[in-house]
Amino acid sequence: MSAILRGAAAAERVLARADELAALSRTSGGIDRRYLTPEHRAANALTAGWLADAGLVAWQDAAGNQCGRVPGAPVDAPVVLLGSHLDSVPNAGRYDGILGVLVALEVAERLRDDATTLPFALEIVGFADEEGTRFGATLLGSRAVAGTWDPAWAELRDENGVTLREAARGFGLDPDRVGEASRAGELVAYLEAHIEQGPRLERADRALGVVTRIAAAERRLLTLRGETRHGATPWDMRHDALLGFAEADLAIERIVRDAGAYATVGHVAVQPDAVNVIPGLAEFSLDLRDATEEGRDAAWELVHAELVGLADARGLRLDVASTHRADACIADPRLRNAIATGIAATGDAEPMELFSVAGHDAMAIAAAAPVAMLFVRCAGGISHAPEESVRADDVALAIDALEAAVRDLARGAASAS
Amino acid sequence: MSAILRGAAAAERVLARADELAALSRTSGGIDRRYLTPEHRAANALTAGWLADAGLVAWQDAAGNQCGRVPGAPVDAPVVLLGSHLDSVPNAGRYDGILGVLVALEVAERLRDDATTLPFALEIVGFADEEGTRFGATLLGSRAVAGTWDPAWAELRDENGVTLREAARGFGLDPDRVGEASRAGELVAYLEAHIEQGPRLERADRALGVVTRIAAAERRLLTLRGETRHGATPWDMRHDALLGFAEADLAIERIVRDAGAYATVGHVAVQPDAVNVIPGLAEFSLDLRDATEEGRDAAWELVHAELVGLADARGLRLDVASTHRADACIADPRLRNAIATGIAATGDAEPMELFSVAGHDAMAIAAAAPVAMLFVRCAGGISHAPEESVRADDVALAIDALEAAVRDLARGAASAS
Repeated sequence: MSAILRGAAAAERVLARADELAALSRTSGGIDRRYLTPEHRAANALTAGWLADAGLVAWQDAAGNQCGRVPGAPVDAPVVLLGSHLDSVPNAGRYDGILGVLVALEVAERLRDDATTLPFALEIVGFADEEGTRFGATLLGSRAVAGTWDPAWAELRDENGVTLREAARGFGLDPDRVGEASRAGELVAYLEAHIEQGPRLERADRALGVVTRIAAAERRLLTLRGETRHGATPWDMRHDALLGFAEADLAIERIVRDAGAYATVGHVAVQPDAVNVIPGLAEFSLDLRDATEEGRDAAWELVHAELVGLADARGLRLDVASTHRADACIADPRLRNAIATGIAATGDAEPMELFSVAGHDAMAIAAAAPVAMLFVRCAGGISHAPEESVRADDVALAIDALEAAVRDLARGAASAS
Repeated sequence: MSAILRGAAAAERVLARADELAALSRTSGGIDRRYLTPEHRAANALTAGWLADAGLVAWQDAAGNQCGRVPGAPVDAPVVLLGSHLDSVPNAGRYDGILGVLVALEVAERLRDDATTLPFALEIVGFADEEGTRFGATLLGSRAVAGTWDPAWAELRDENGVTLREAARGFGLDPDRVGEASRAGELVAYLEAHIEQGPRLERADRALGVVTRIAAAERRLLTLRGETRHGATPWDMRHDALLGFAEADLAIERIVRDAGAYATVGHVAVQPDAVNVIPGLAEFSLDLRDATEEGRDAAWELVHAELVGLADARGLRLDVASTHRADACIADPRLRNAIATGIAATGDAEPMELFSVAGHDAMAIAAAAPVAMLFVRCAGGISHAPEESVRADDVALAIDALEAAVRDLARGAASAS
């Protein structure tokens, strides 16, 4: 088989497997696959079978991540890890996370026969929780592998009040031993392929891109409190928390857009939420991101000043709580160069560099090892929606590029040693 | 006892009884008393005891309304009905509805000994559902009495999925015989005292006012549909339904306020309601009121045109459904004059006239009989909130005015016959 035909066949297999995984969903309408659920178990089992078919040793770790290792390397060899995540948001697409796991699997199969010549052990991971859909906290699978699992997370609850501790037990895991999934100290590199979740590659007519950094992010829960009143209250006596929210949401859009940063207000809830009662309380989330911490924080300062002013003008009280804060994650220069070299090997001599607005498992793994990422073009920049789509020829290039990147790392490690 | 002392004692008793009823609540924090609940049963029992203490014959009707009749009138005498409702919104105050029932009870007790001289039977009612908190549809108690009960309402469900049919059975009512509560054909007048739920009496330094009409109202459920996307989506590719809602809410405020009408947006919900996902759907309620149908509909035309334009500008789809529509309810001239005469008898020679922005049981009863209402000043215009408050001296005047109004009706009826 020619390299082109081989690449096309591998890409078709990746897309077919993504379709198979898409069927493992809590809901029949859109994909919904959460941590420590029957769907999680089924996705791991399916992936474990593919790992075994590819000649890898497969196991599920103490956090429920599905792992595989190309046999042949010494047990204490430094580990190069390839992968992404297998969980999803509600009503998800079929490539976010999944594609990175399946591309890594193809790369491992290609390198399998050369395993004994590699200066490291090659491993694959399908992280069990990146999206944080079930328990609110994100990156649970990759944080366990990075050795930053917090035992307090065992008490997190899902929307039905089930604790992570209970869910882990039901899944067959020991909730007090999740931390044993840590690979800190063994990992020397983590490479992740992922759909771009944005339109920049498509607009630049590129299949692949090399990620320079993952955006700095902060999430806040904001509350506006006014006065709960009957709808018969005259306009000049109202302190409507929902109208305050309306002004806040539009101010956030205007200010953050002008600042060149990203903001999403994805959650809002009012009290008492009755058709003829002026809302006395509006609670909403703000997810604010920028390429740098400085940019993120500067945008927030502008937003916050505006929100204080508009709350004051309506006689509302504003409370703000930070619920998540992540500094920008910088791609390791050596690994980033390997990714660029890998893309160049596919014919794109000067790969496009771009920063990731979305968060990724690489952010968590960065606490334990150097990381870098490869972005794959997706249709219309759409993700976290059923319309998520990738081109088969782009997938073929992604497999080639990641394989070449790993081979480049092997050469570099060999020449350095 | 002087008339002033007697009035003060009656007012104190009304306030003490309102406190007693306030303790009958599903929740301990704020008052929450819904149709066909244990709290409804307890409120009826307490009120029945007071009716009996006042010398009235007390019964619960087929809809769960608590009724009382001053004995002495022929069984087929035309009926003058005094009352209001005993149910509440969530986190309610203690006077909305309640005050009208308790004031009516005092008036009945004062007229008891003159019952045989009245040209009508005097009855009291505490309606079981005005707010519609439990089953969504409002005025259930008074619509049953008016003879406009719709048997289809038996299938309405509460927030826990319990049907009205099931709840009625559990309460001891026959869900197929609620319509037998109808008093259509017997009623010749309905008089209702109620807190103003607005600040106009307070601003005019008046204790009482005569209601000219109840506002025309329409409730709608509006839905904006955009595109559910990851928060990493560039600004120029977003179709954020929640930002569309924000513009809509502010447009409604601006347009309806300028039109001199009333609007409340009390409910909003987004999908998928996730912190890092751009909302693809925002659903919200609009309650629009004006003194006239023409004013209400003209305001909606302006609002609708604006909403269509702003939805279009953001690439959103707007859907609108009308969920409730009520024409203005005009107070009967003869009864309205009796109310004015009653207020004048308390020393306010030219009673203030005002229209009611809020809906009332009188709207439902108007289908079966002439109606009129007496408004009582409330502190700060506040209602549907725990801060609801009335002055004891205003309550004393309300009792005097309603008594005088009934006596005026009796004189009028006697002179007409």
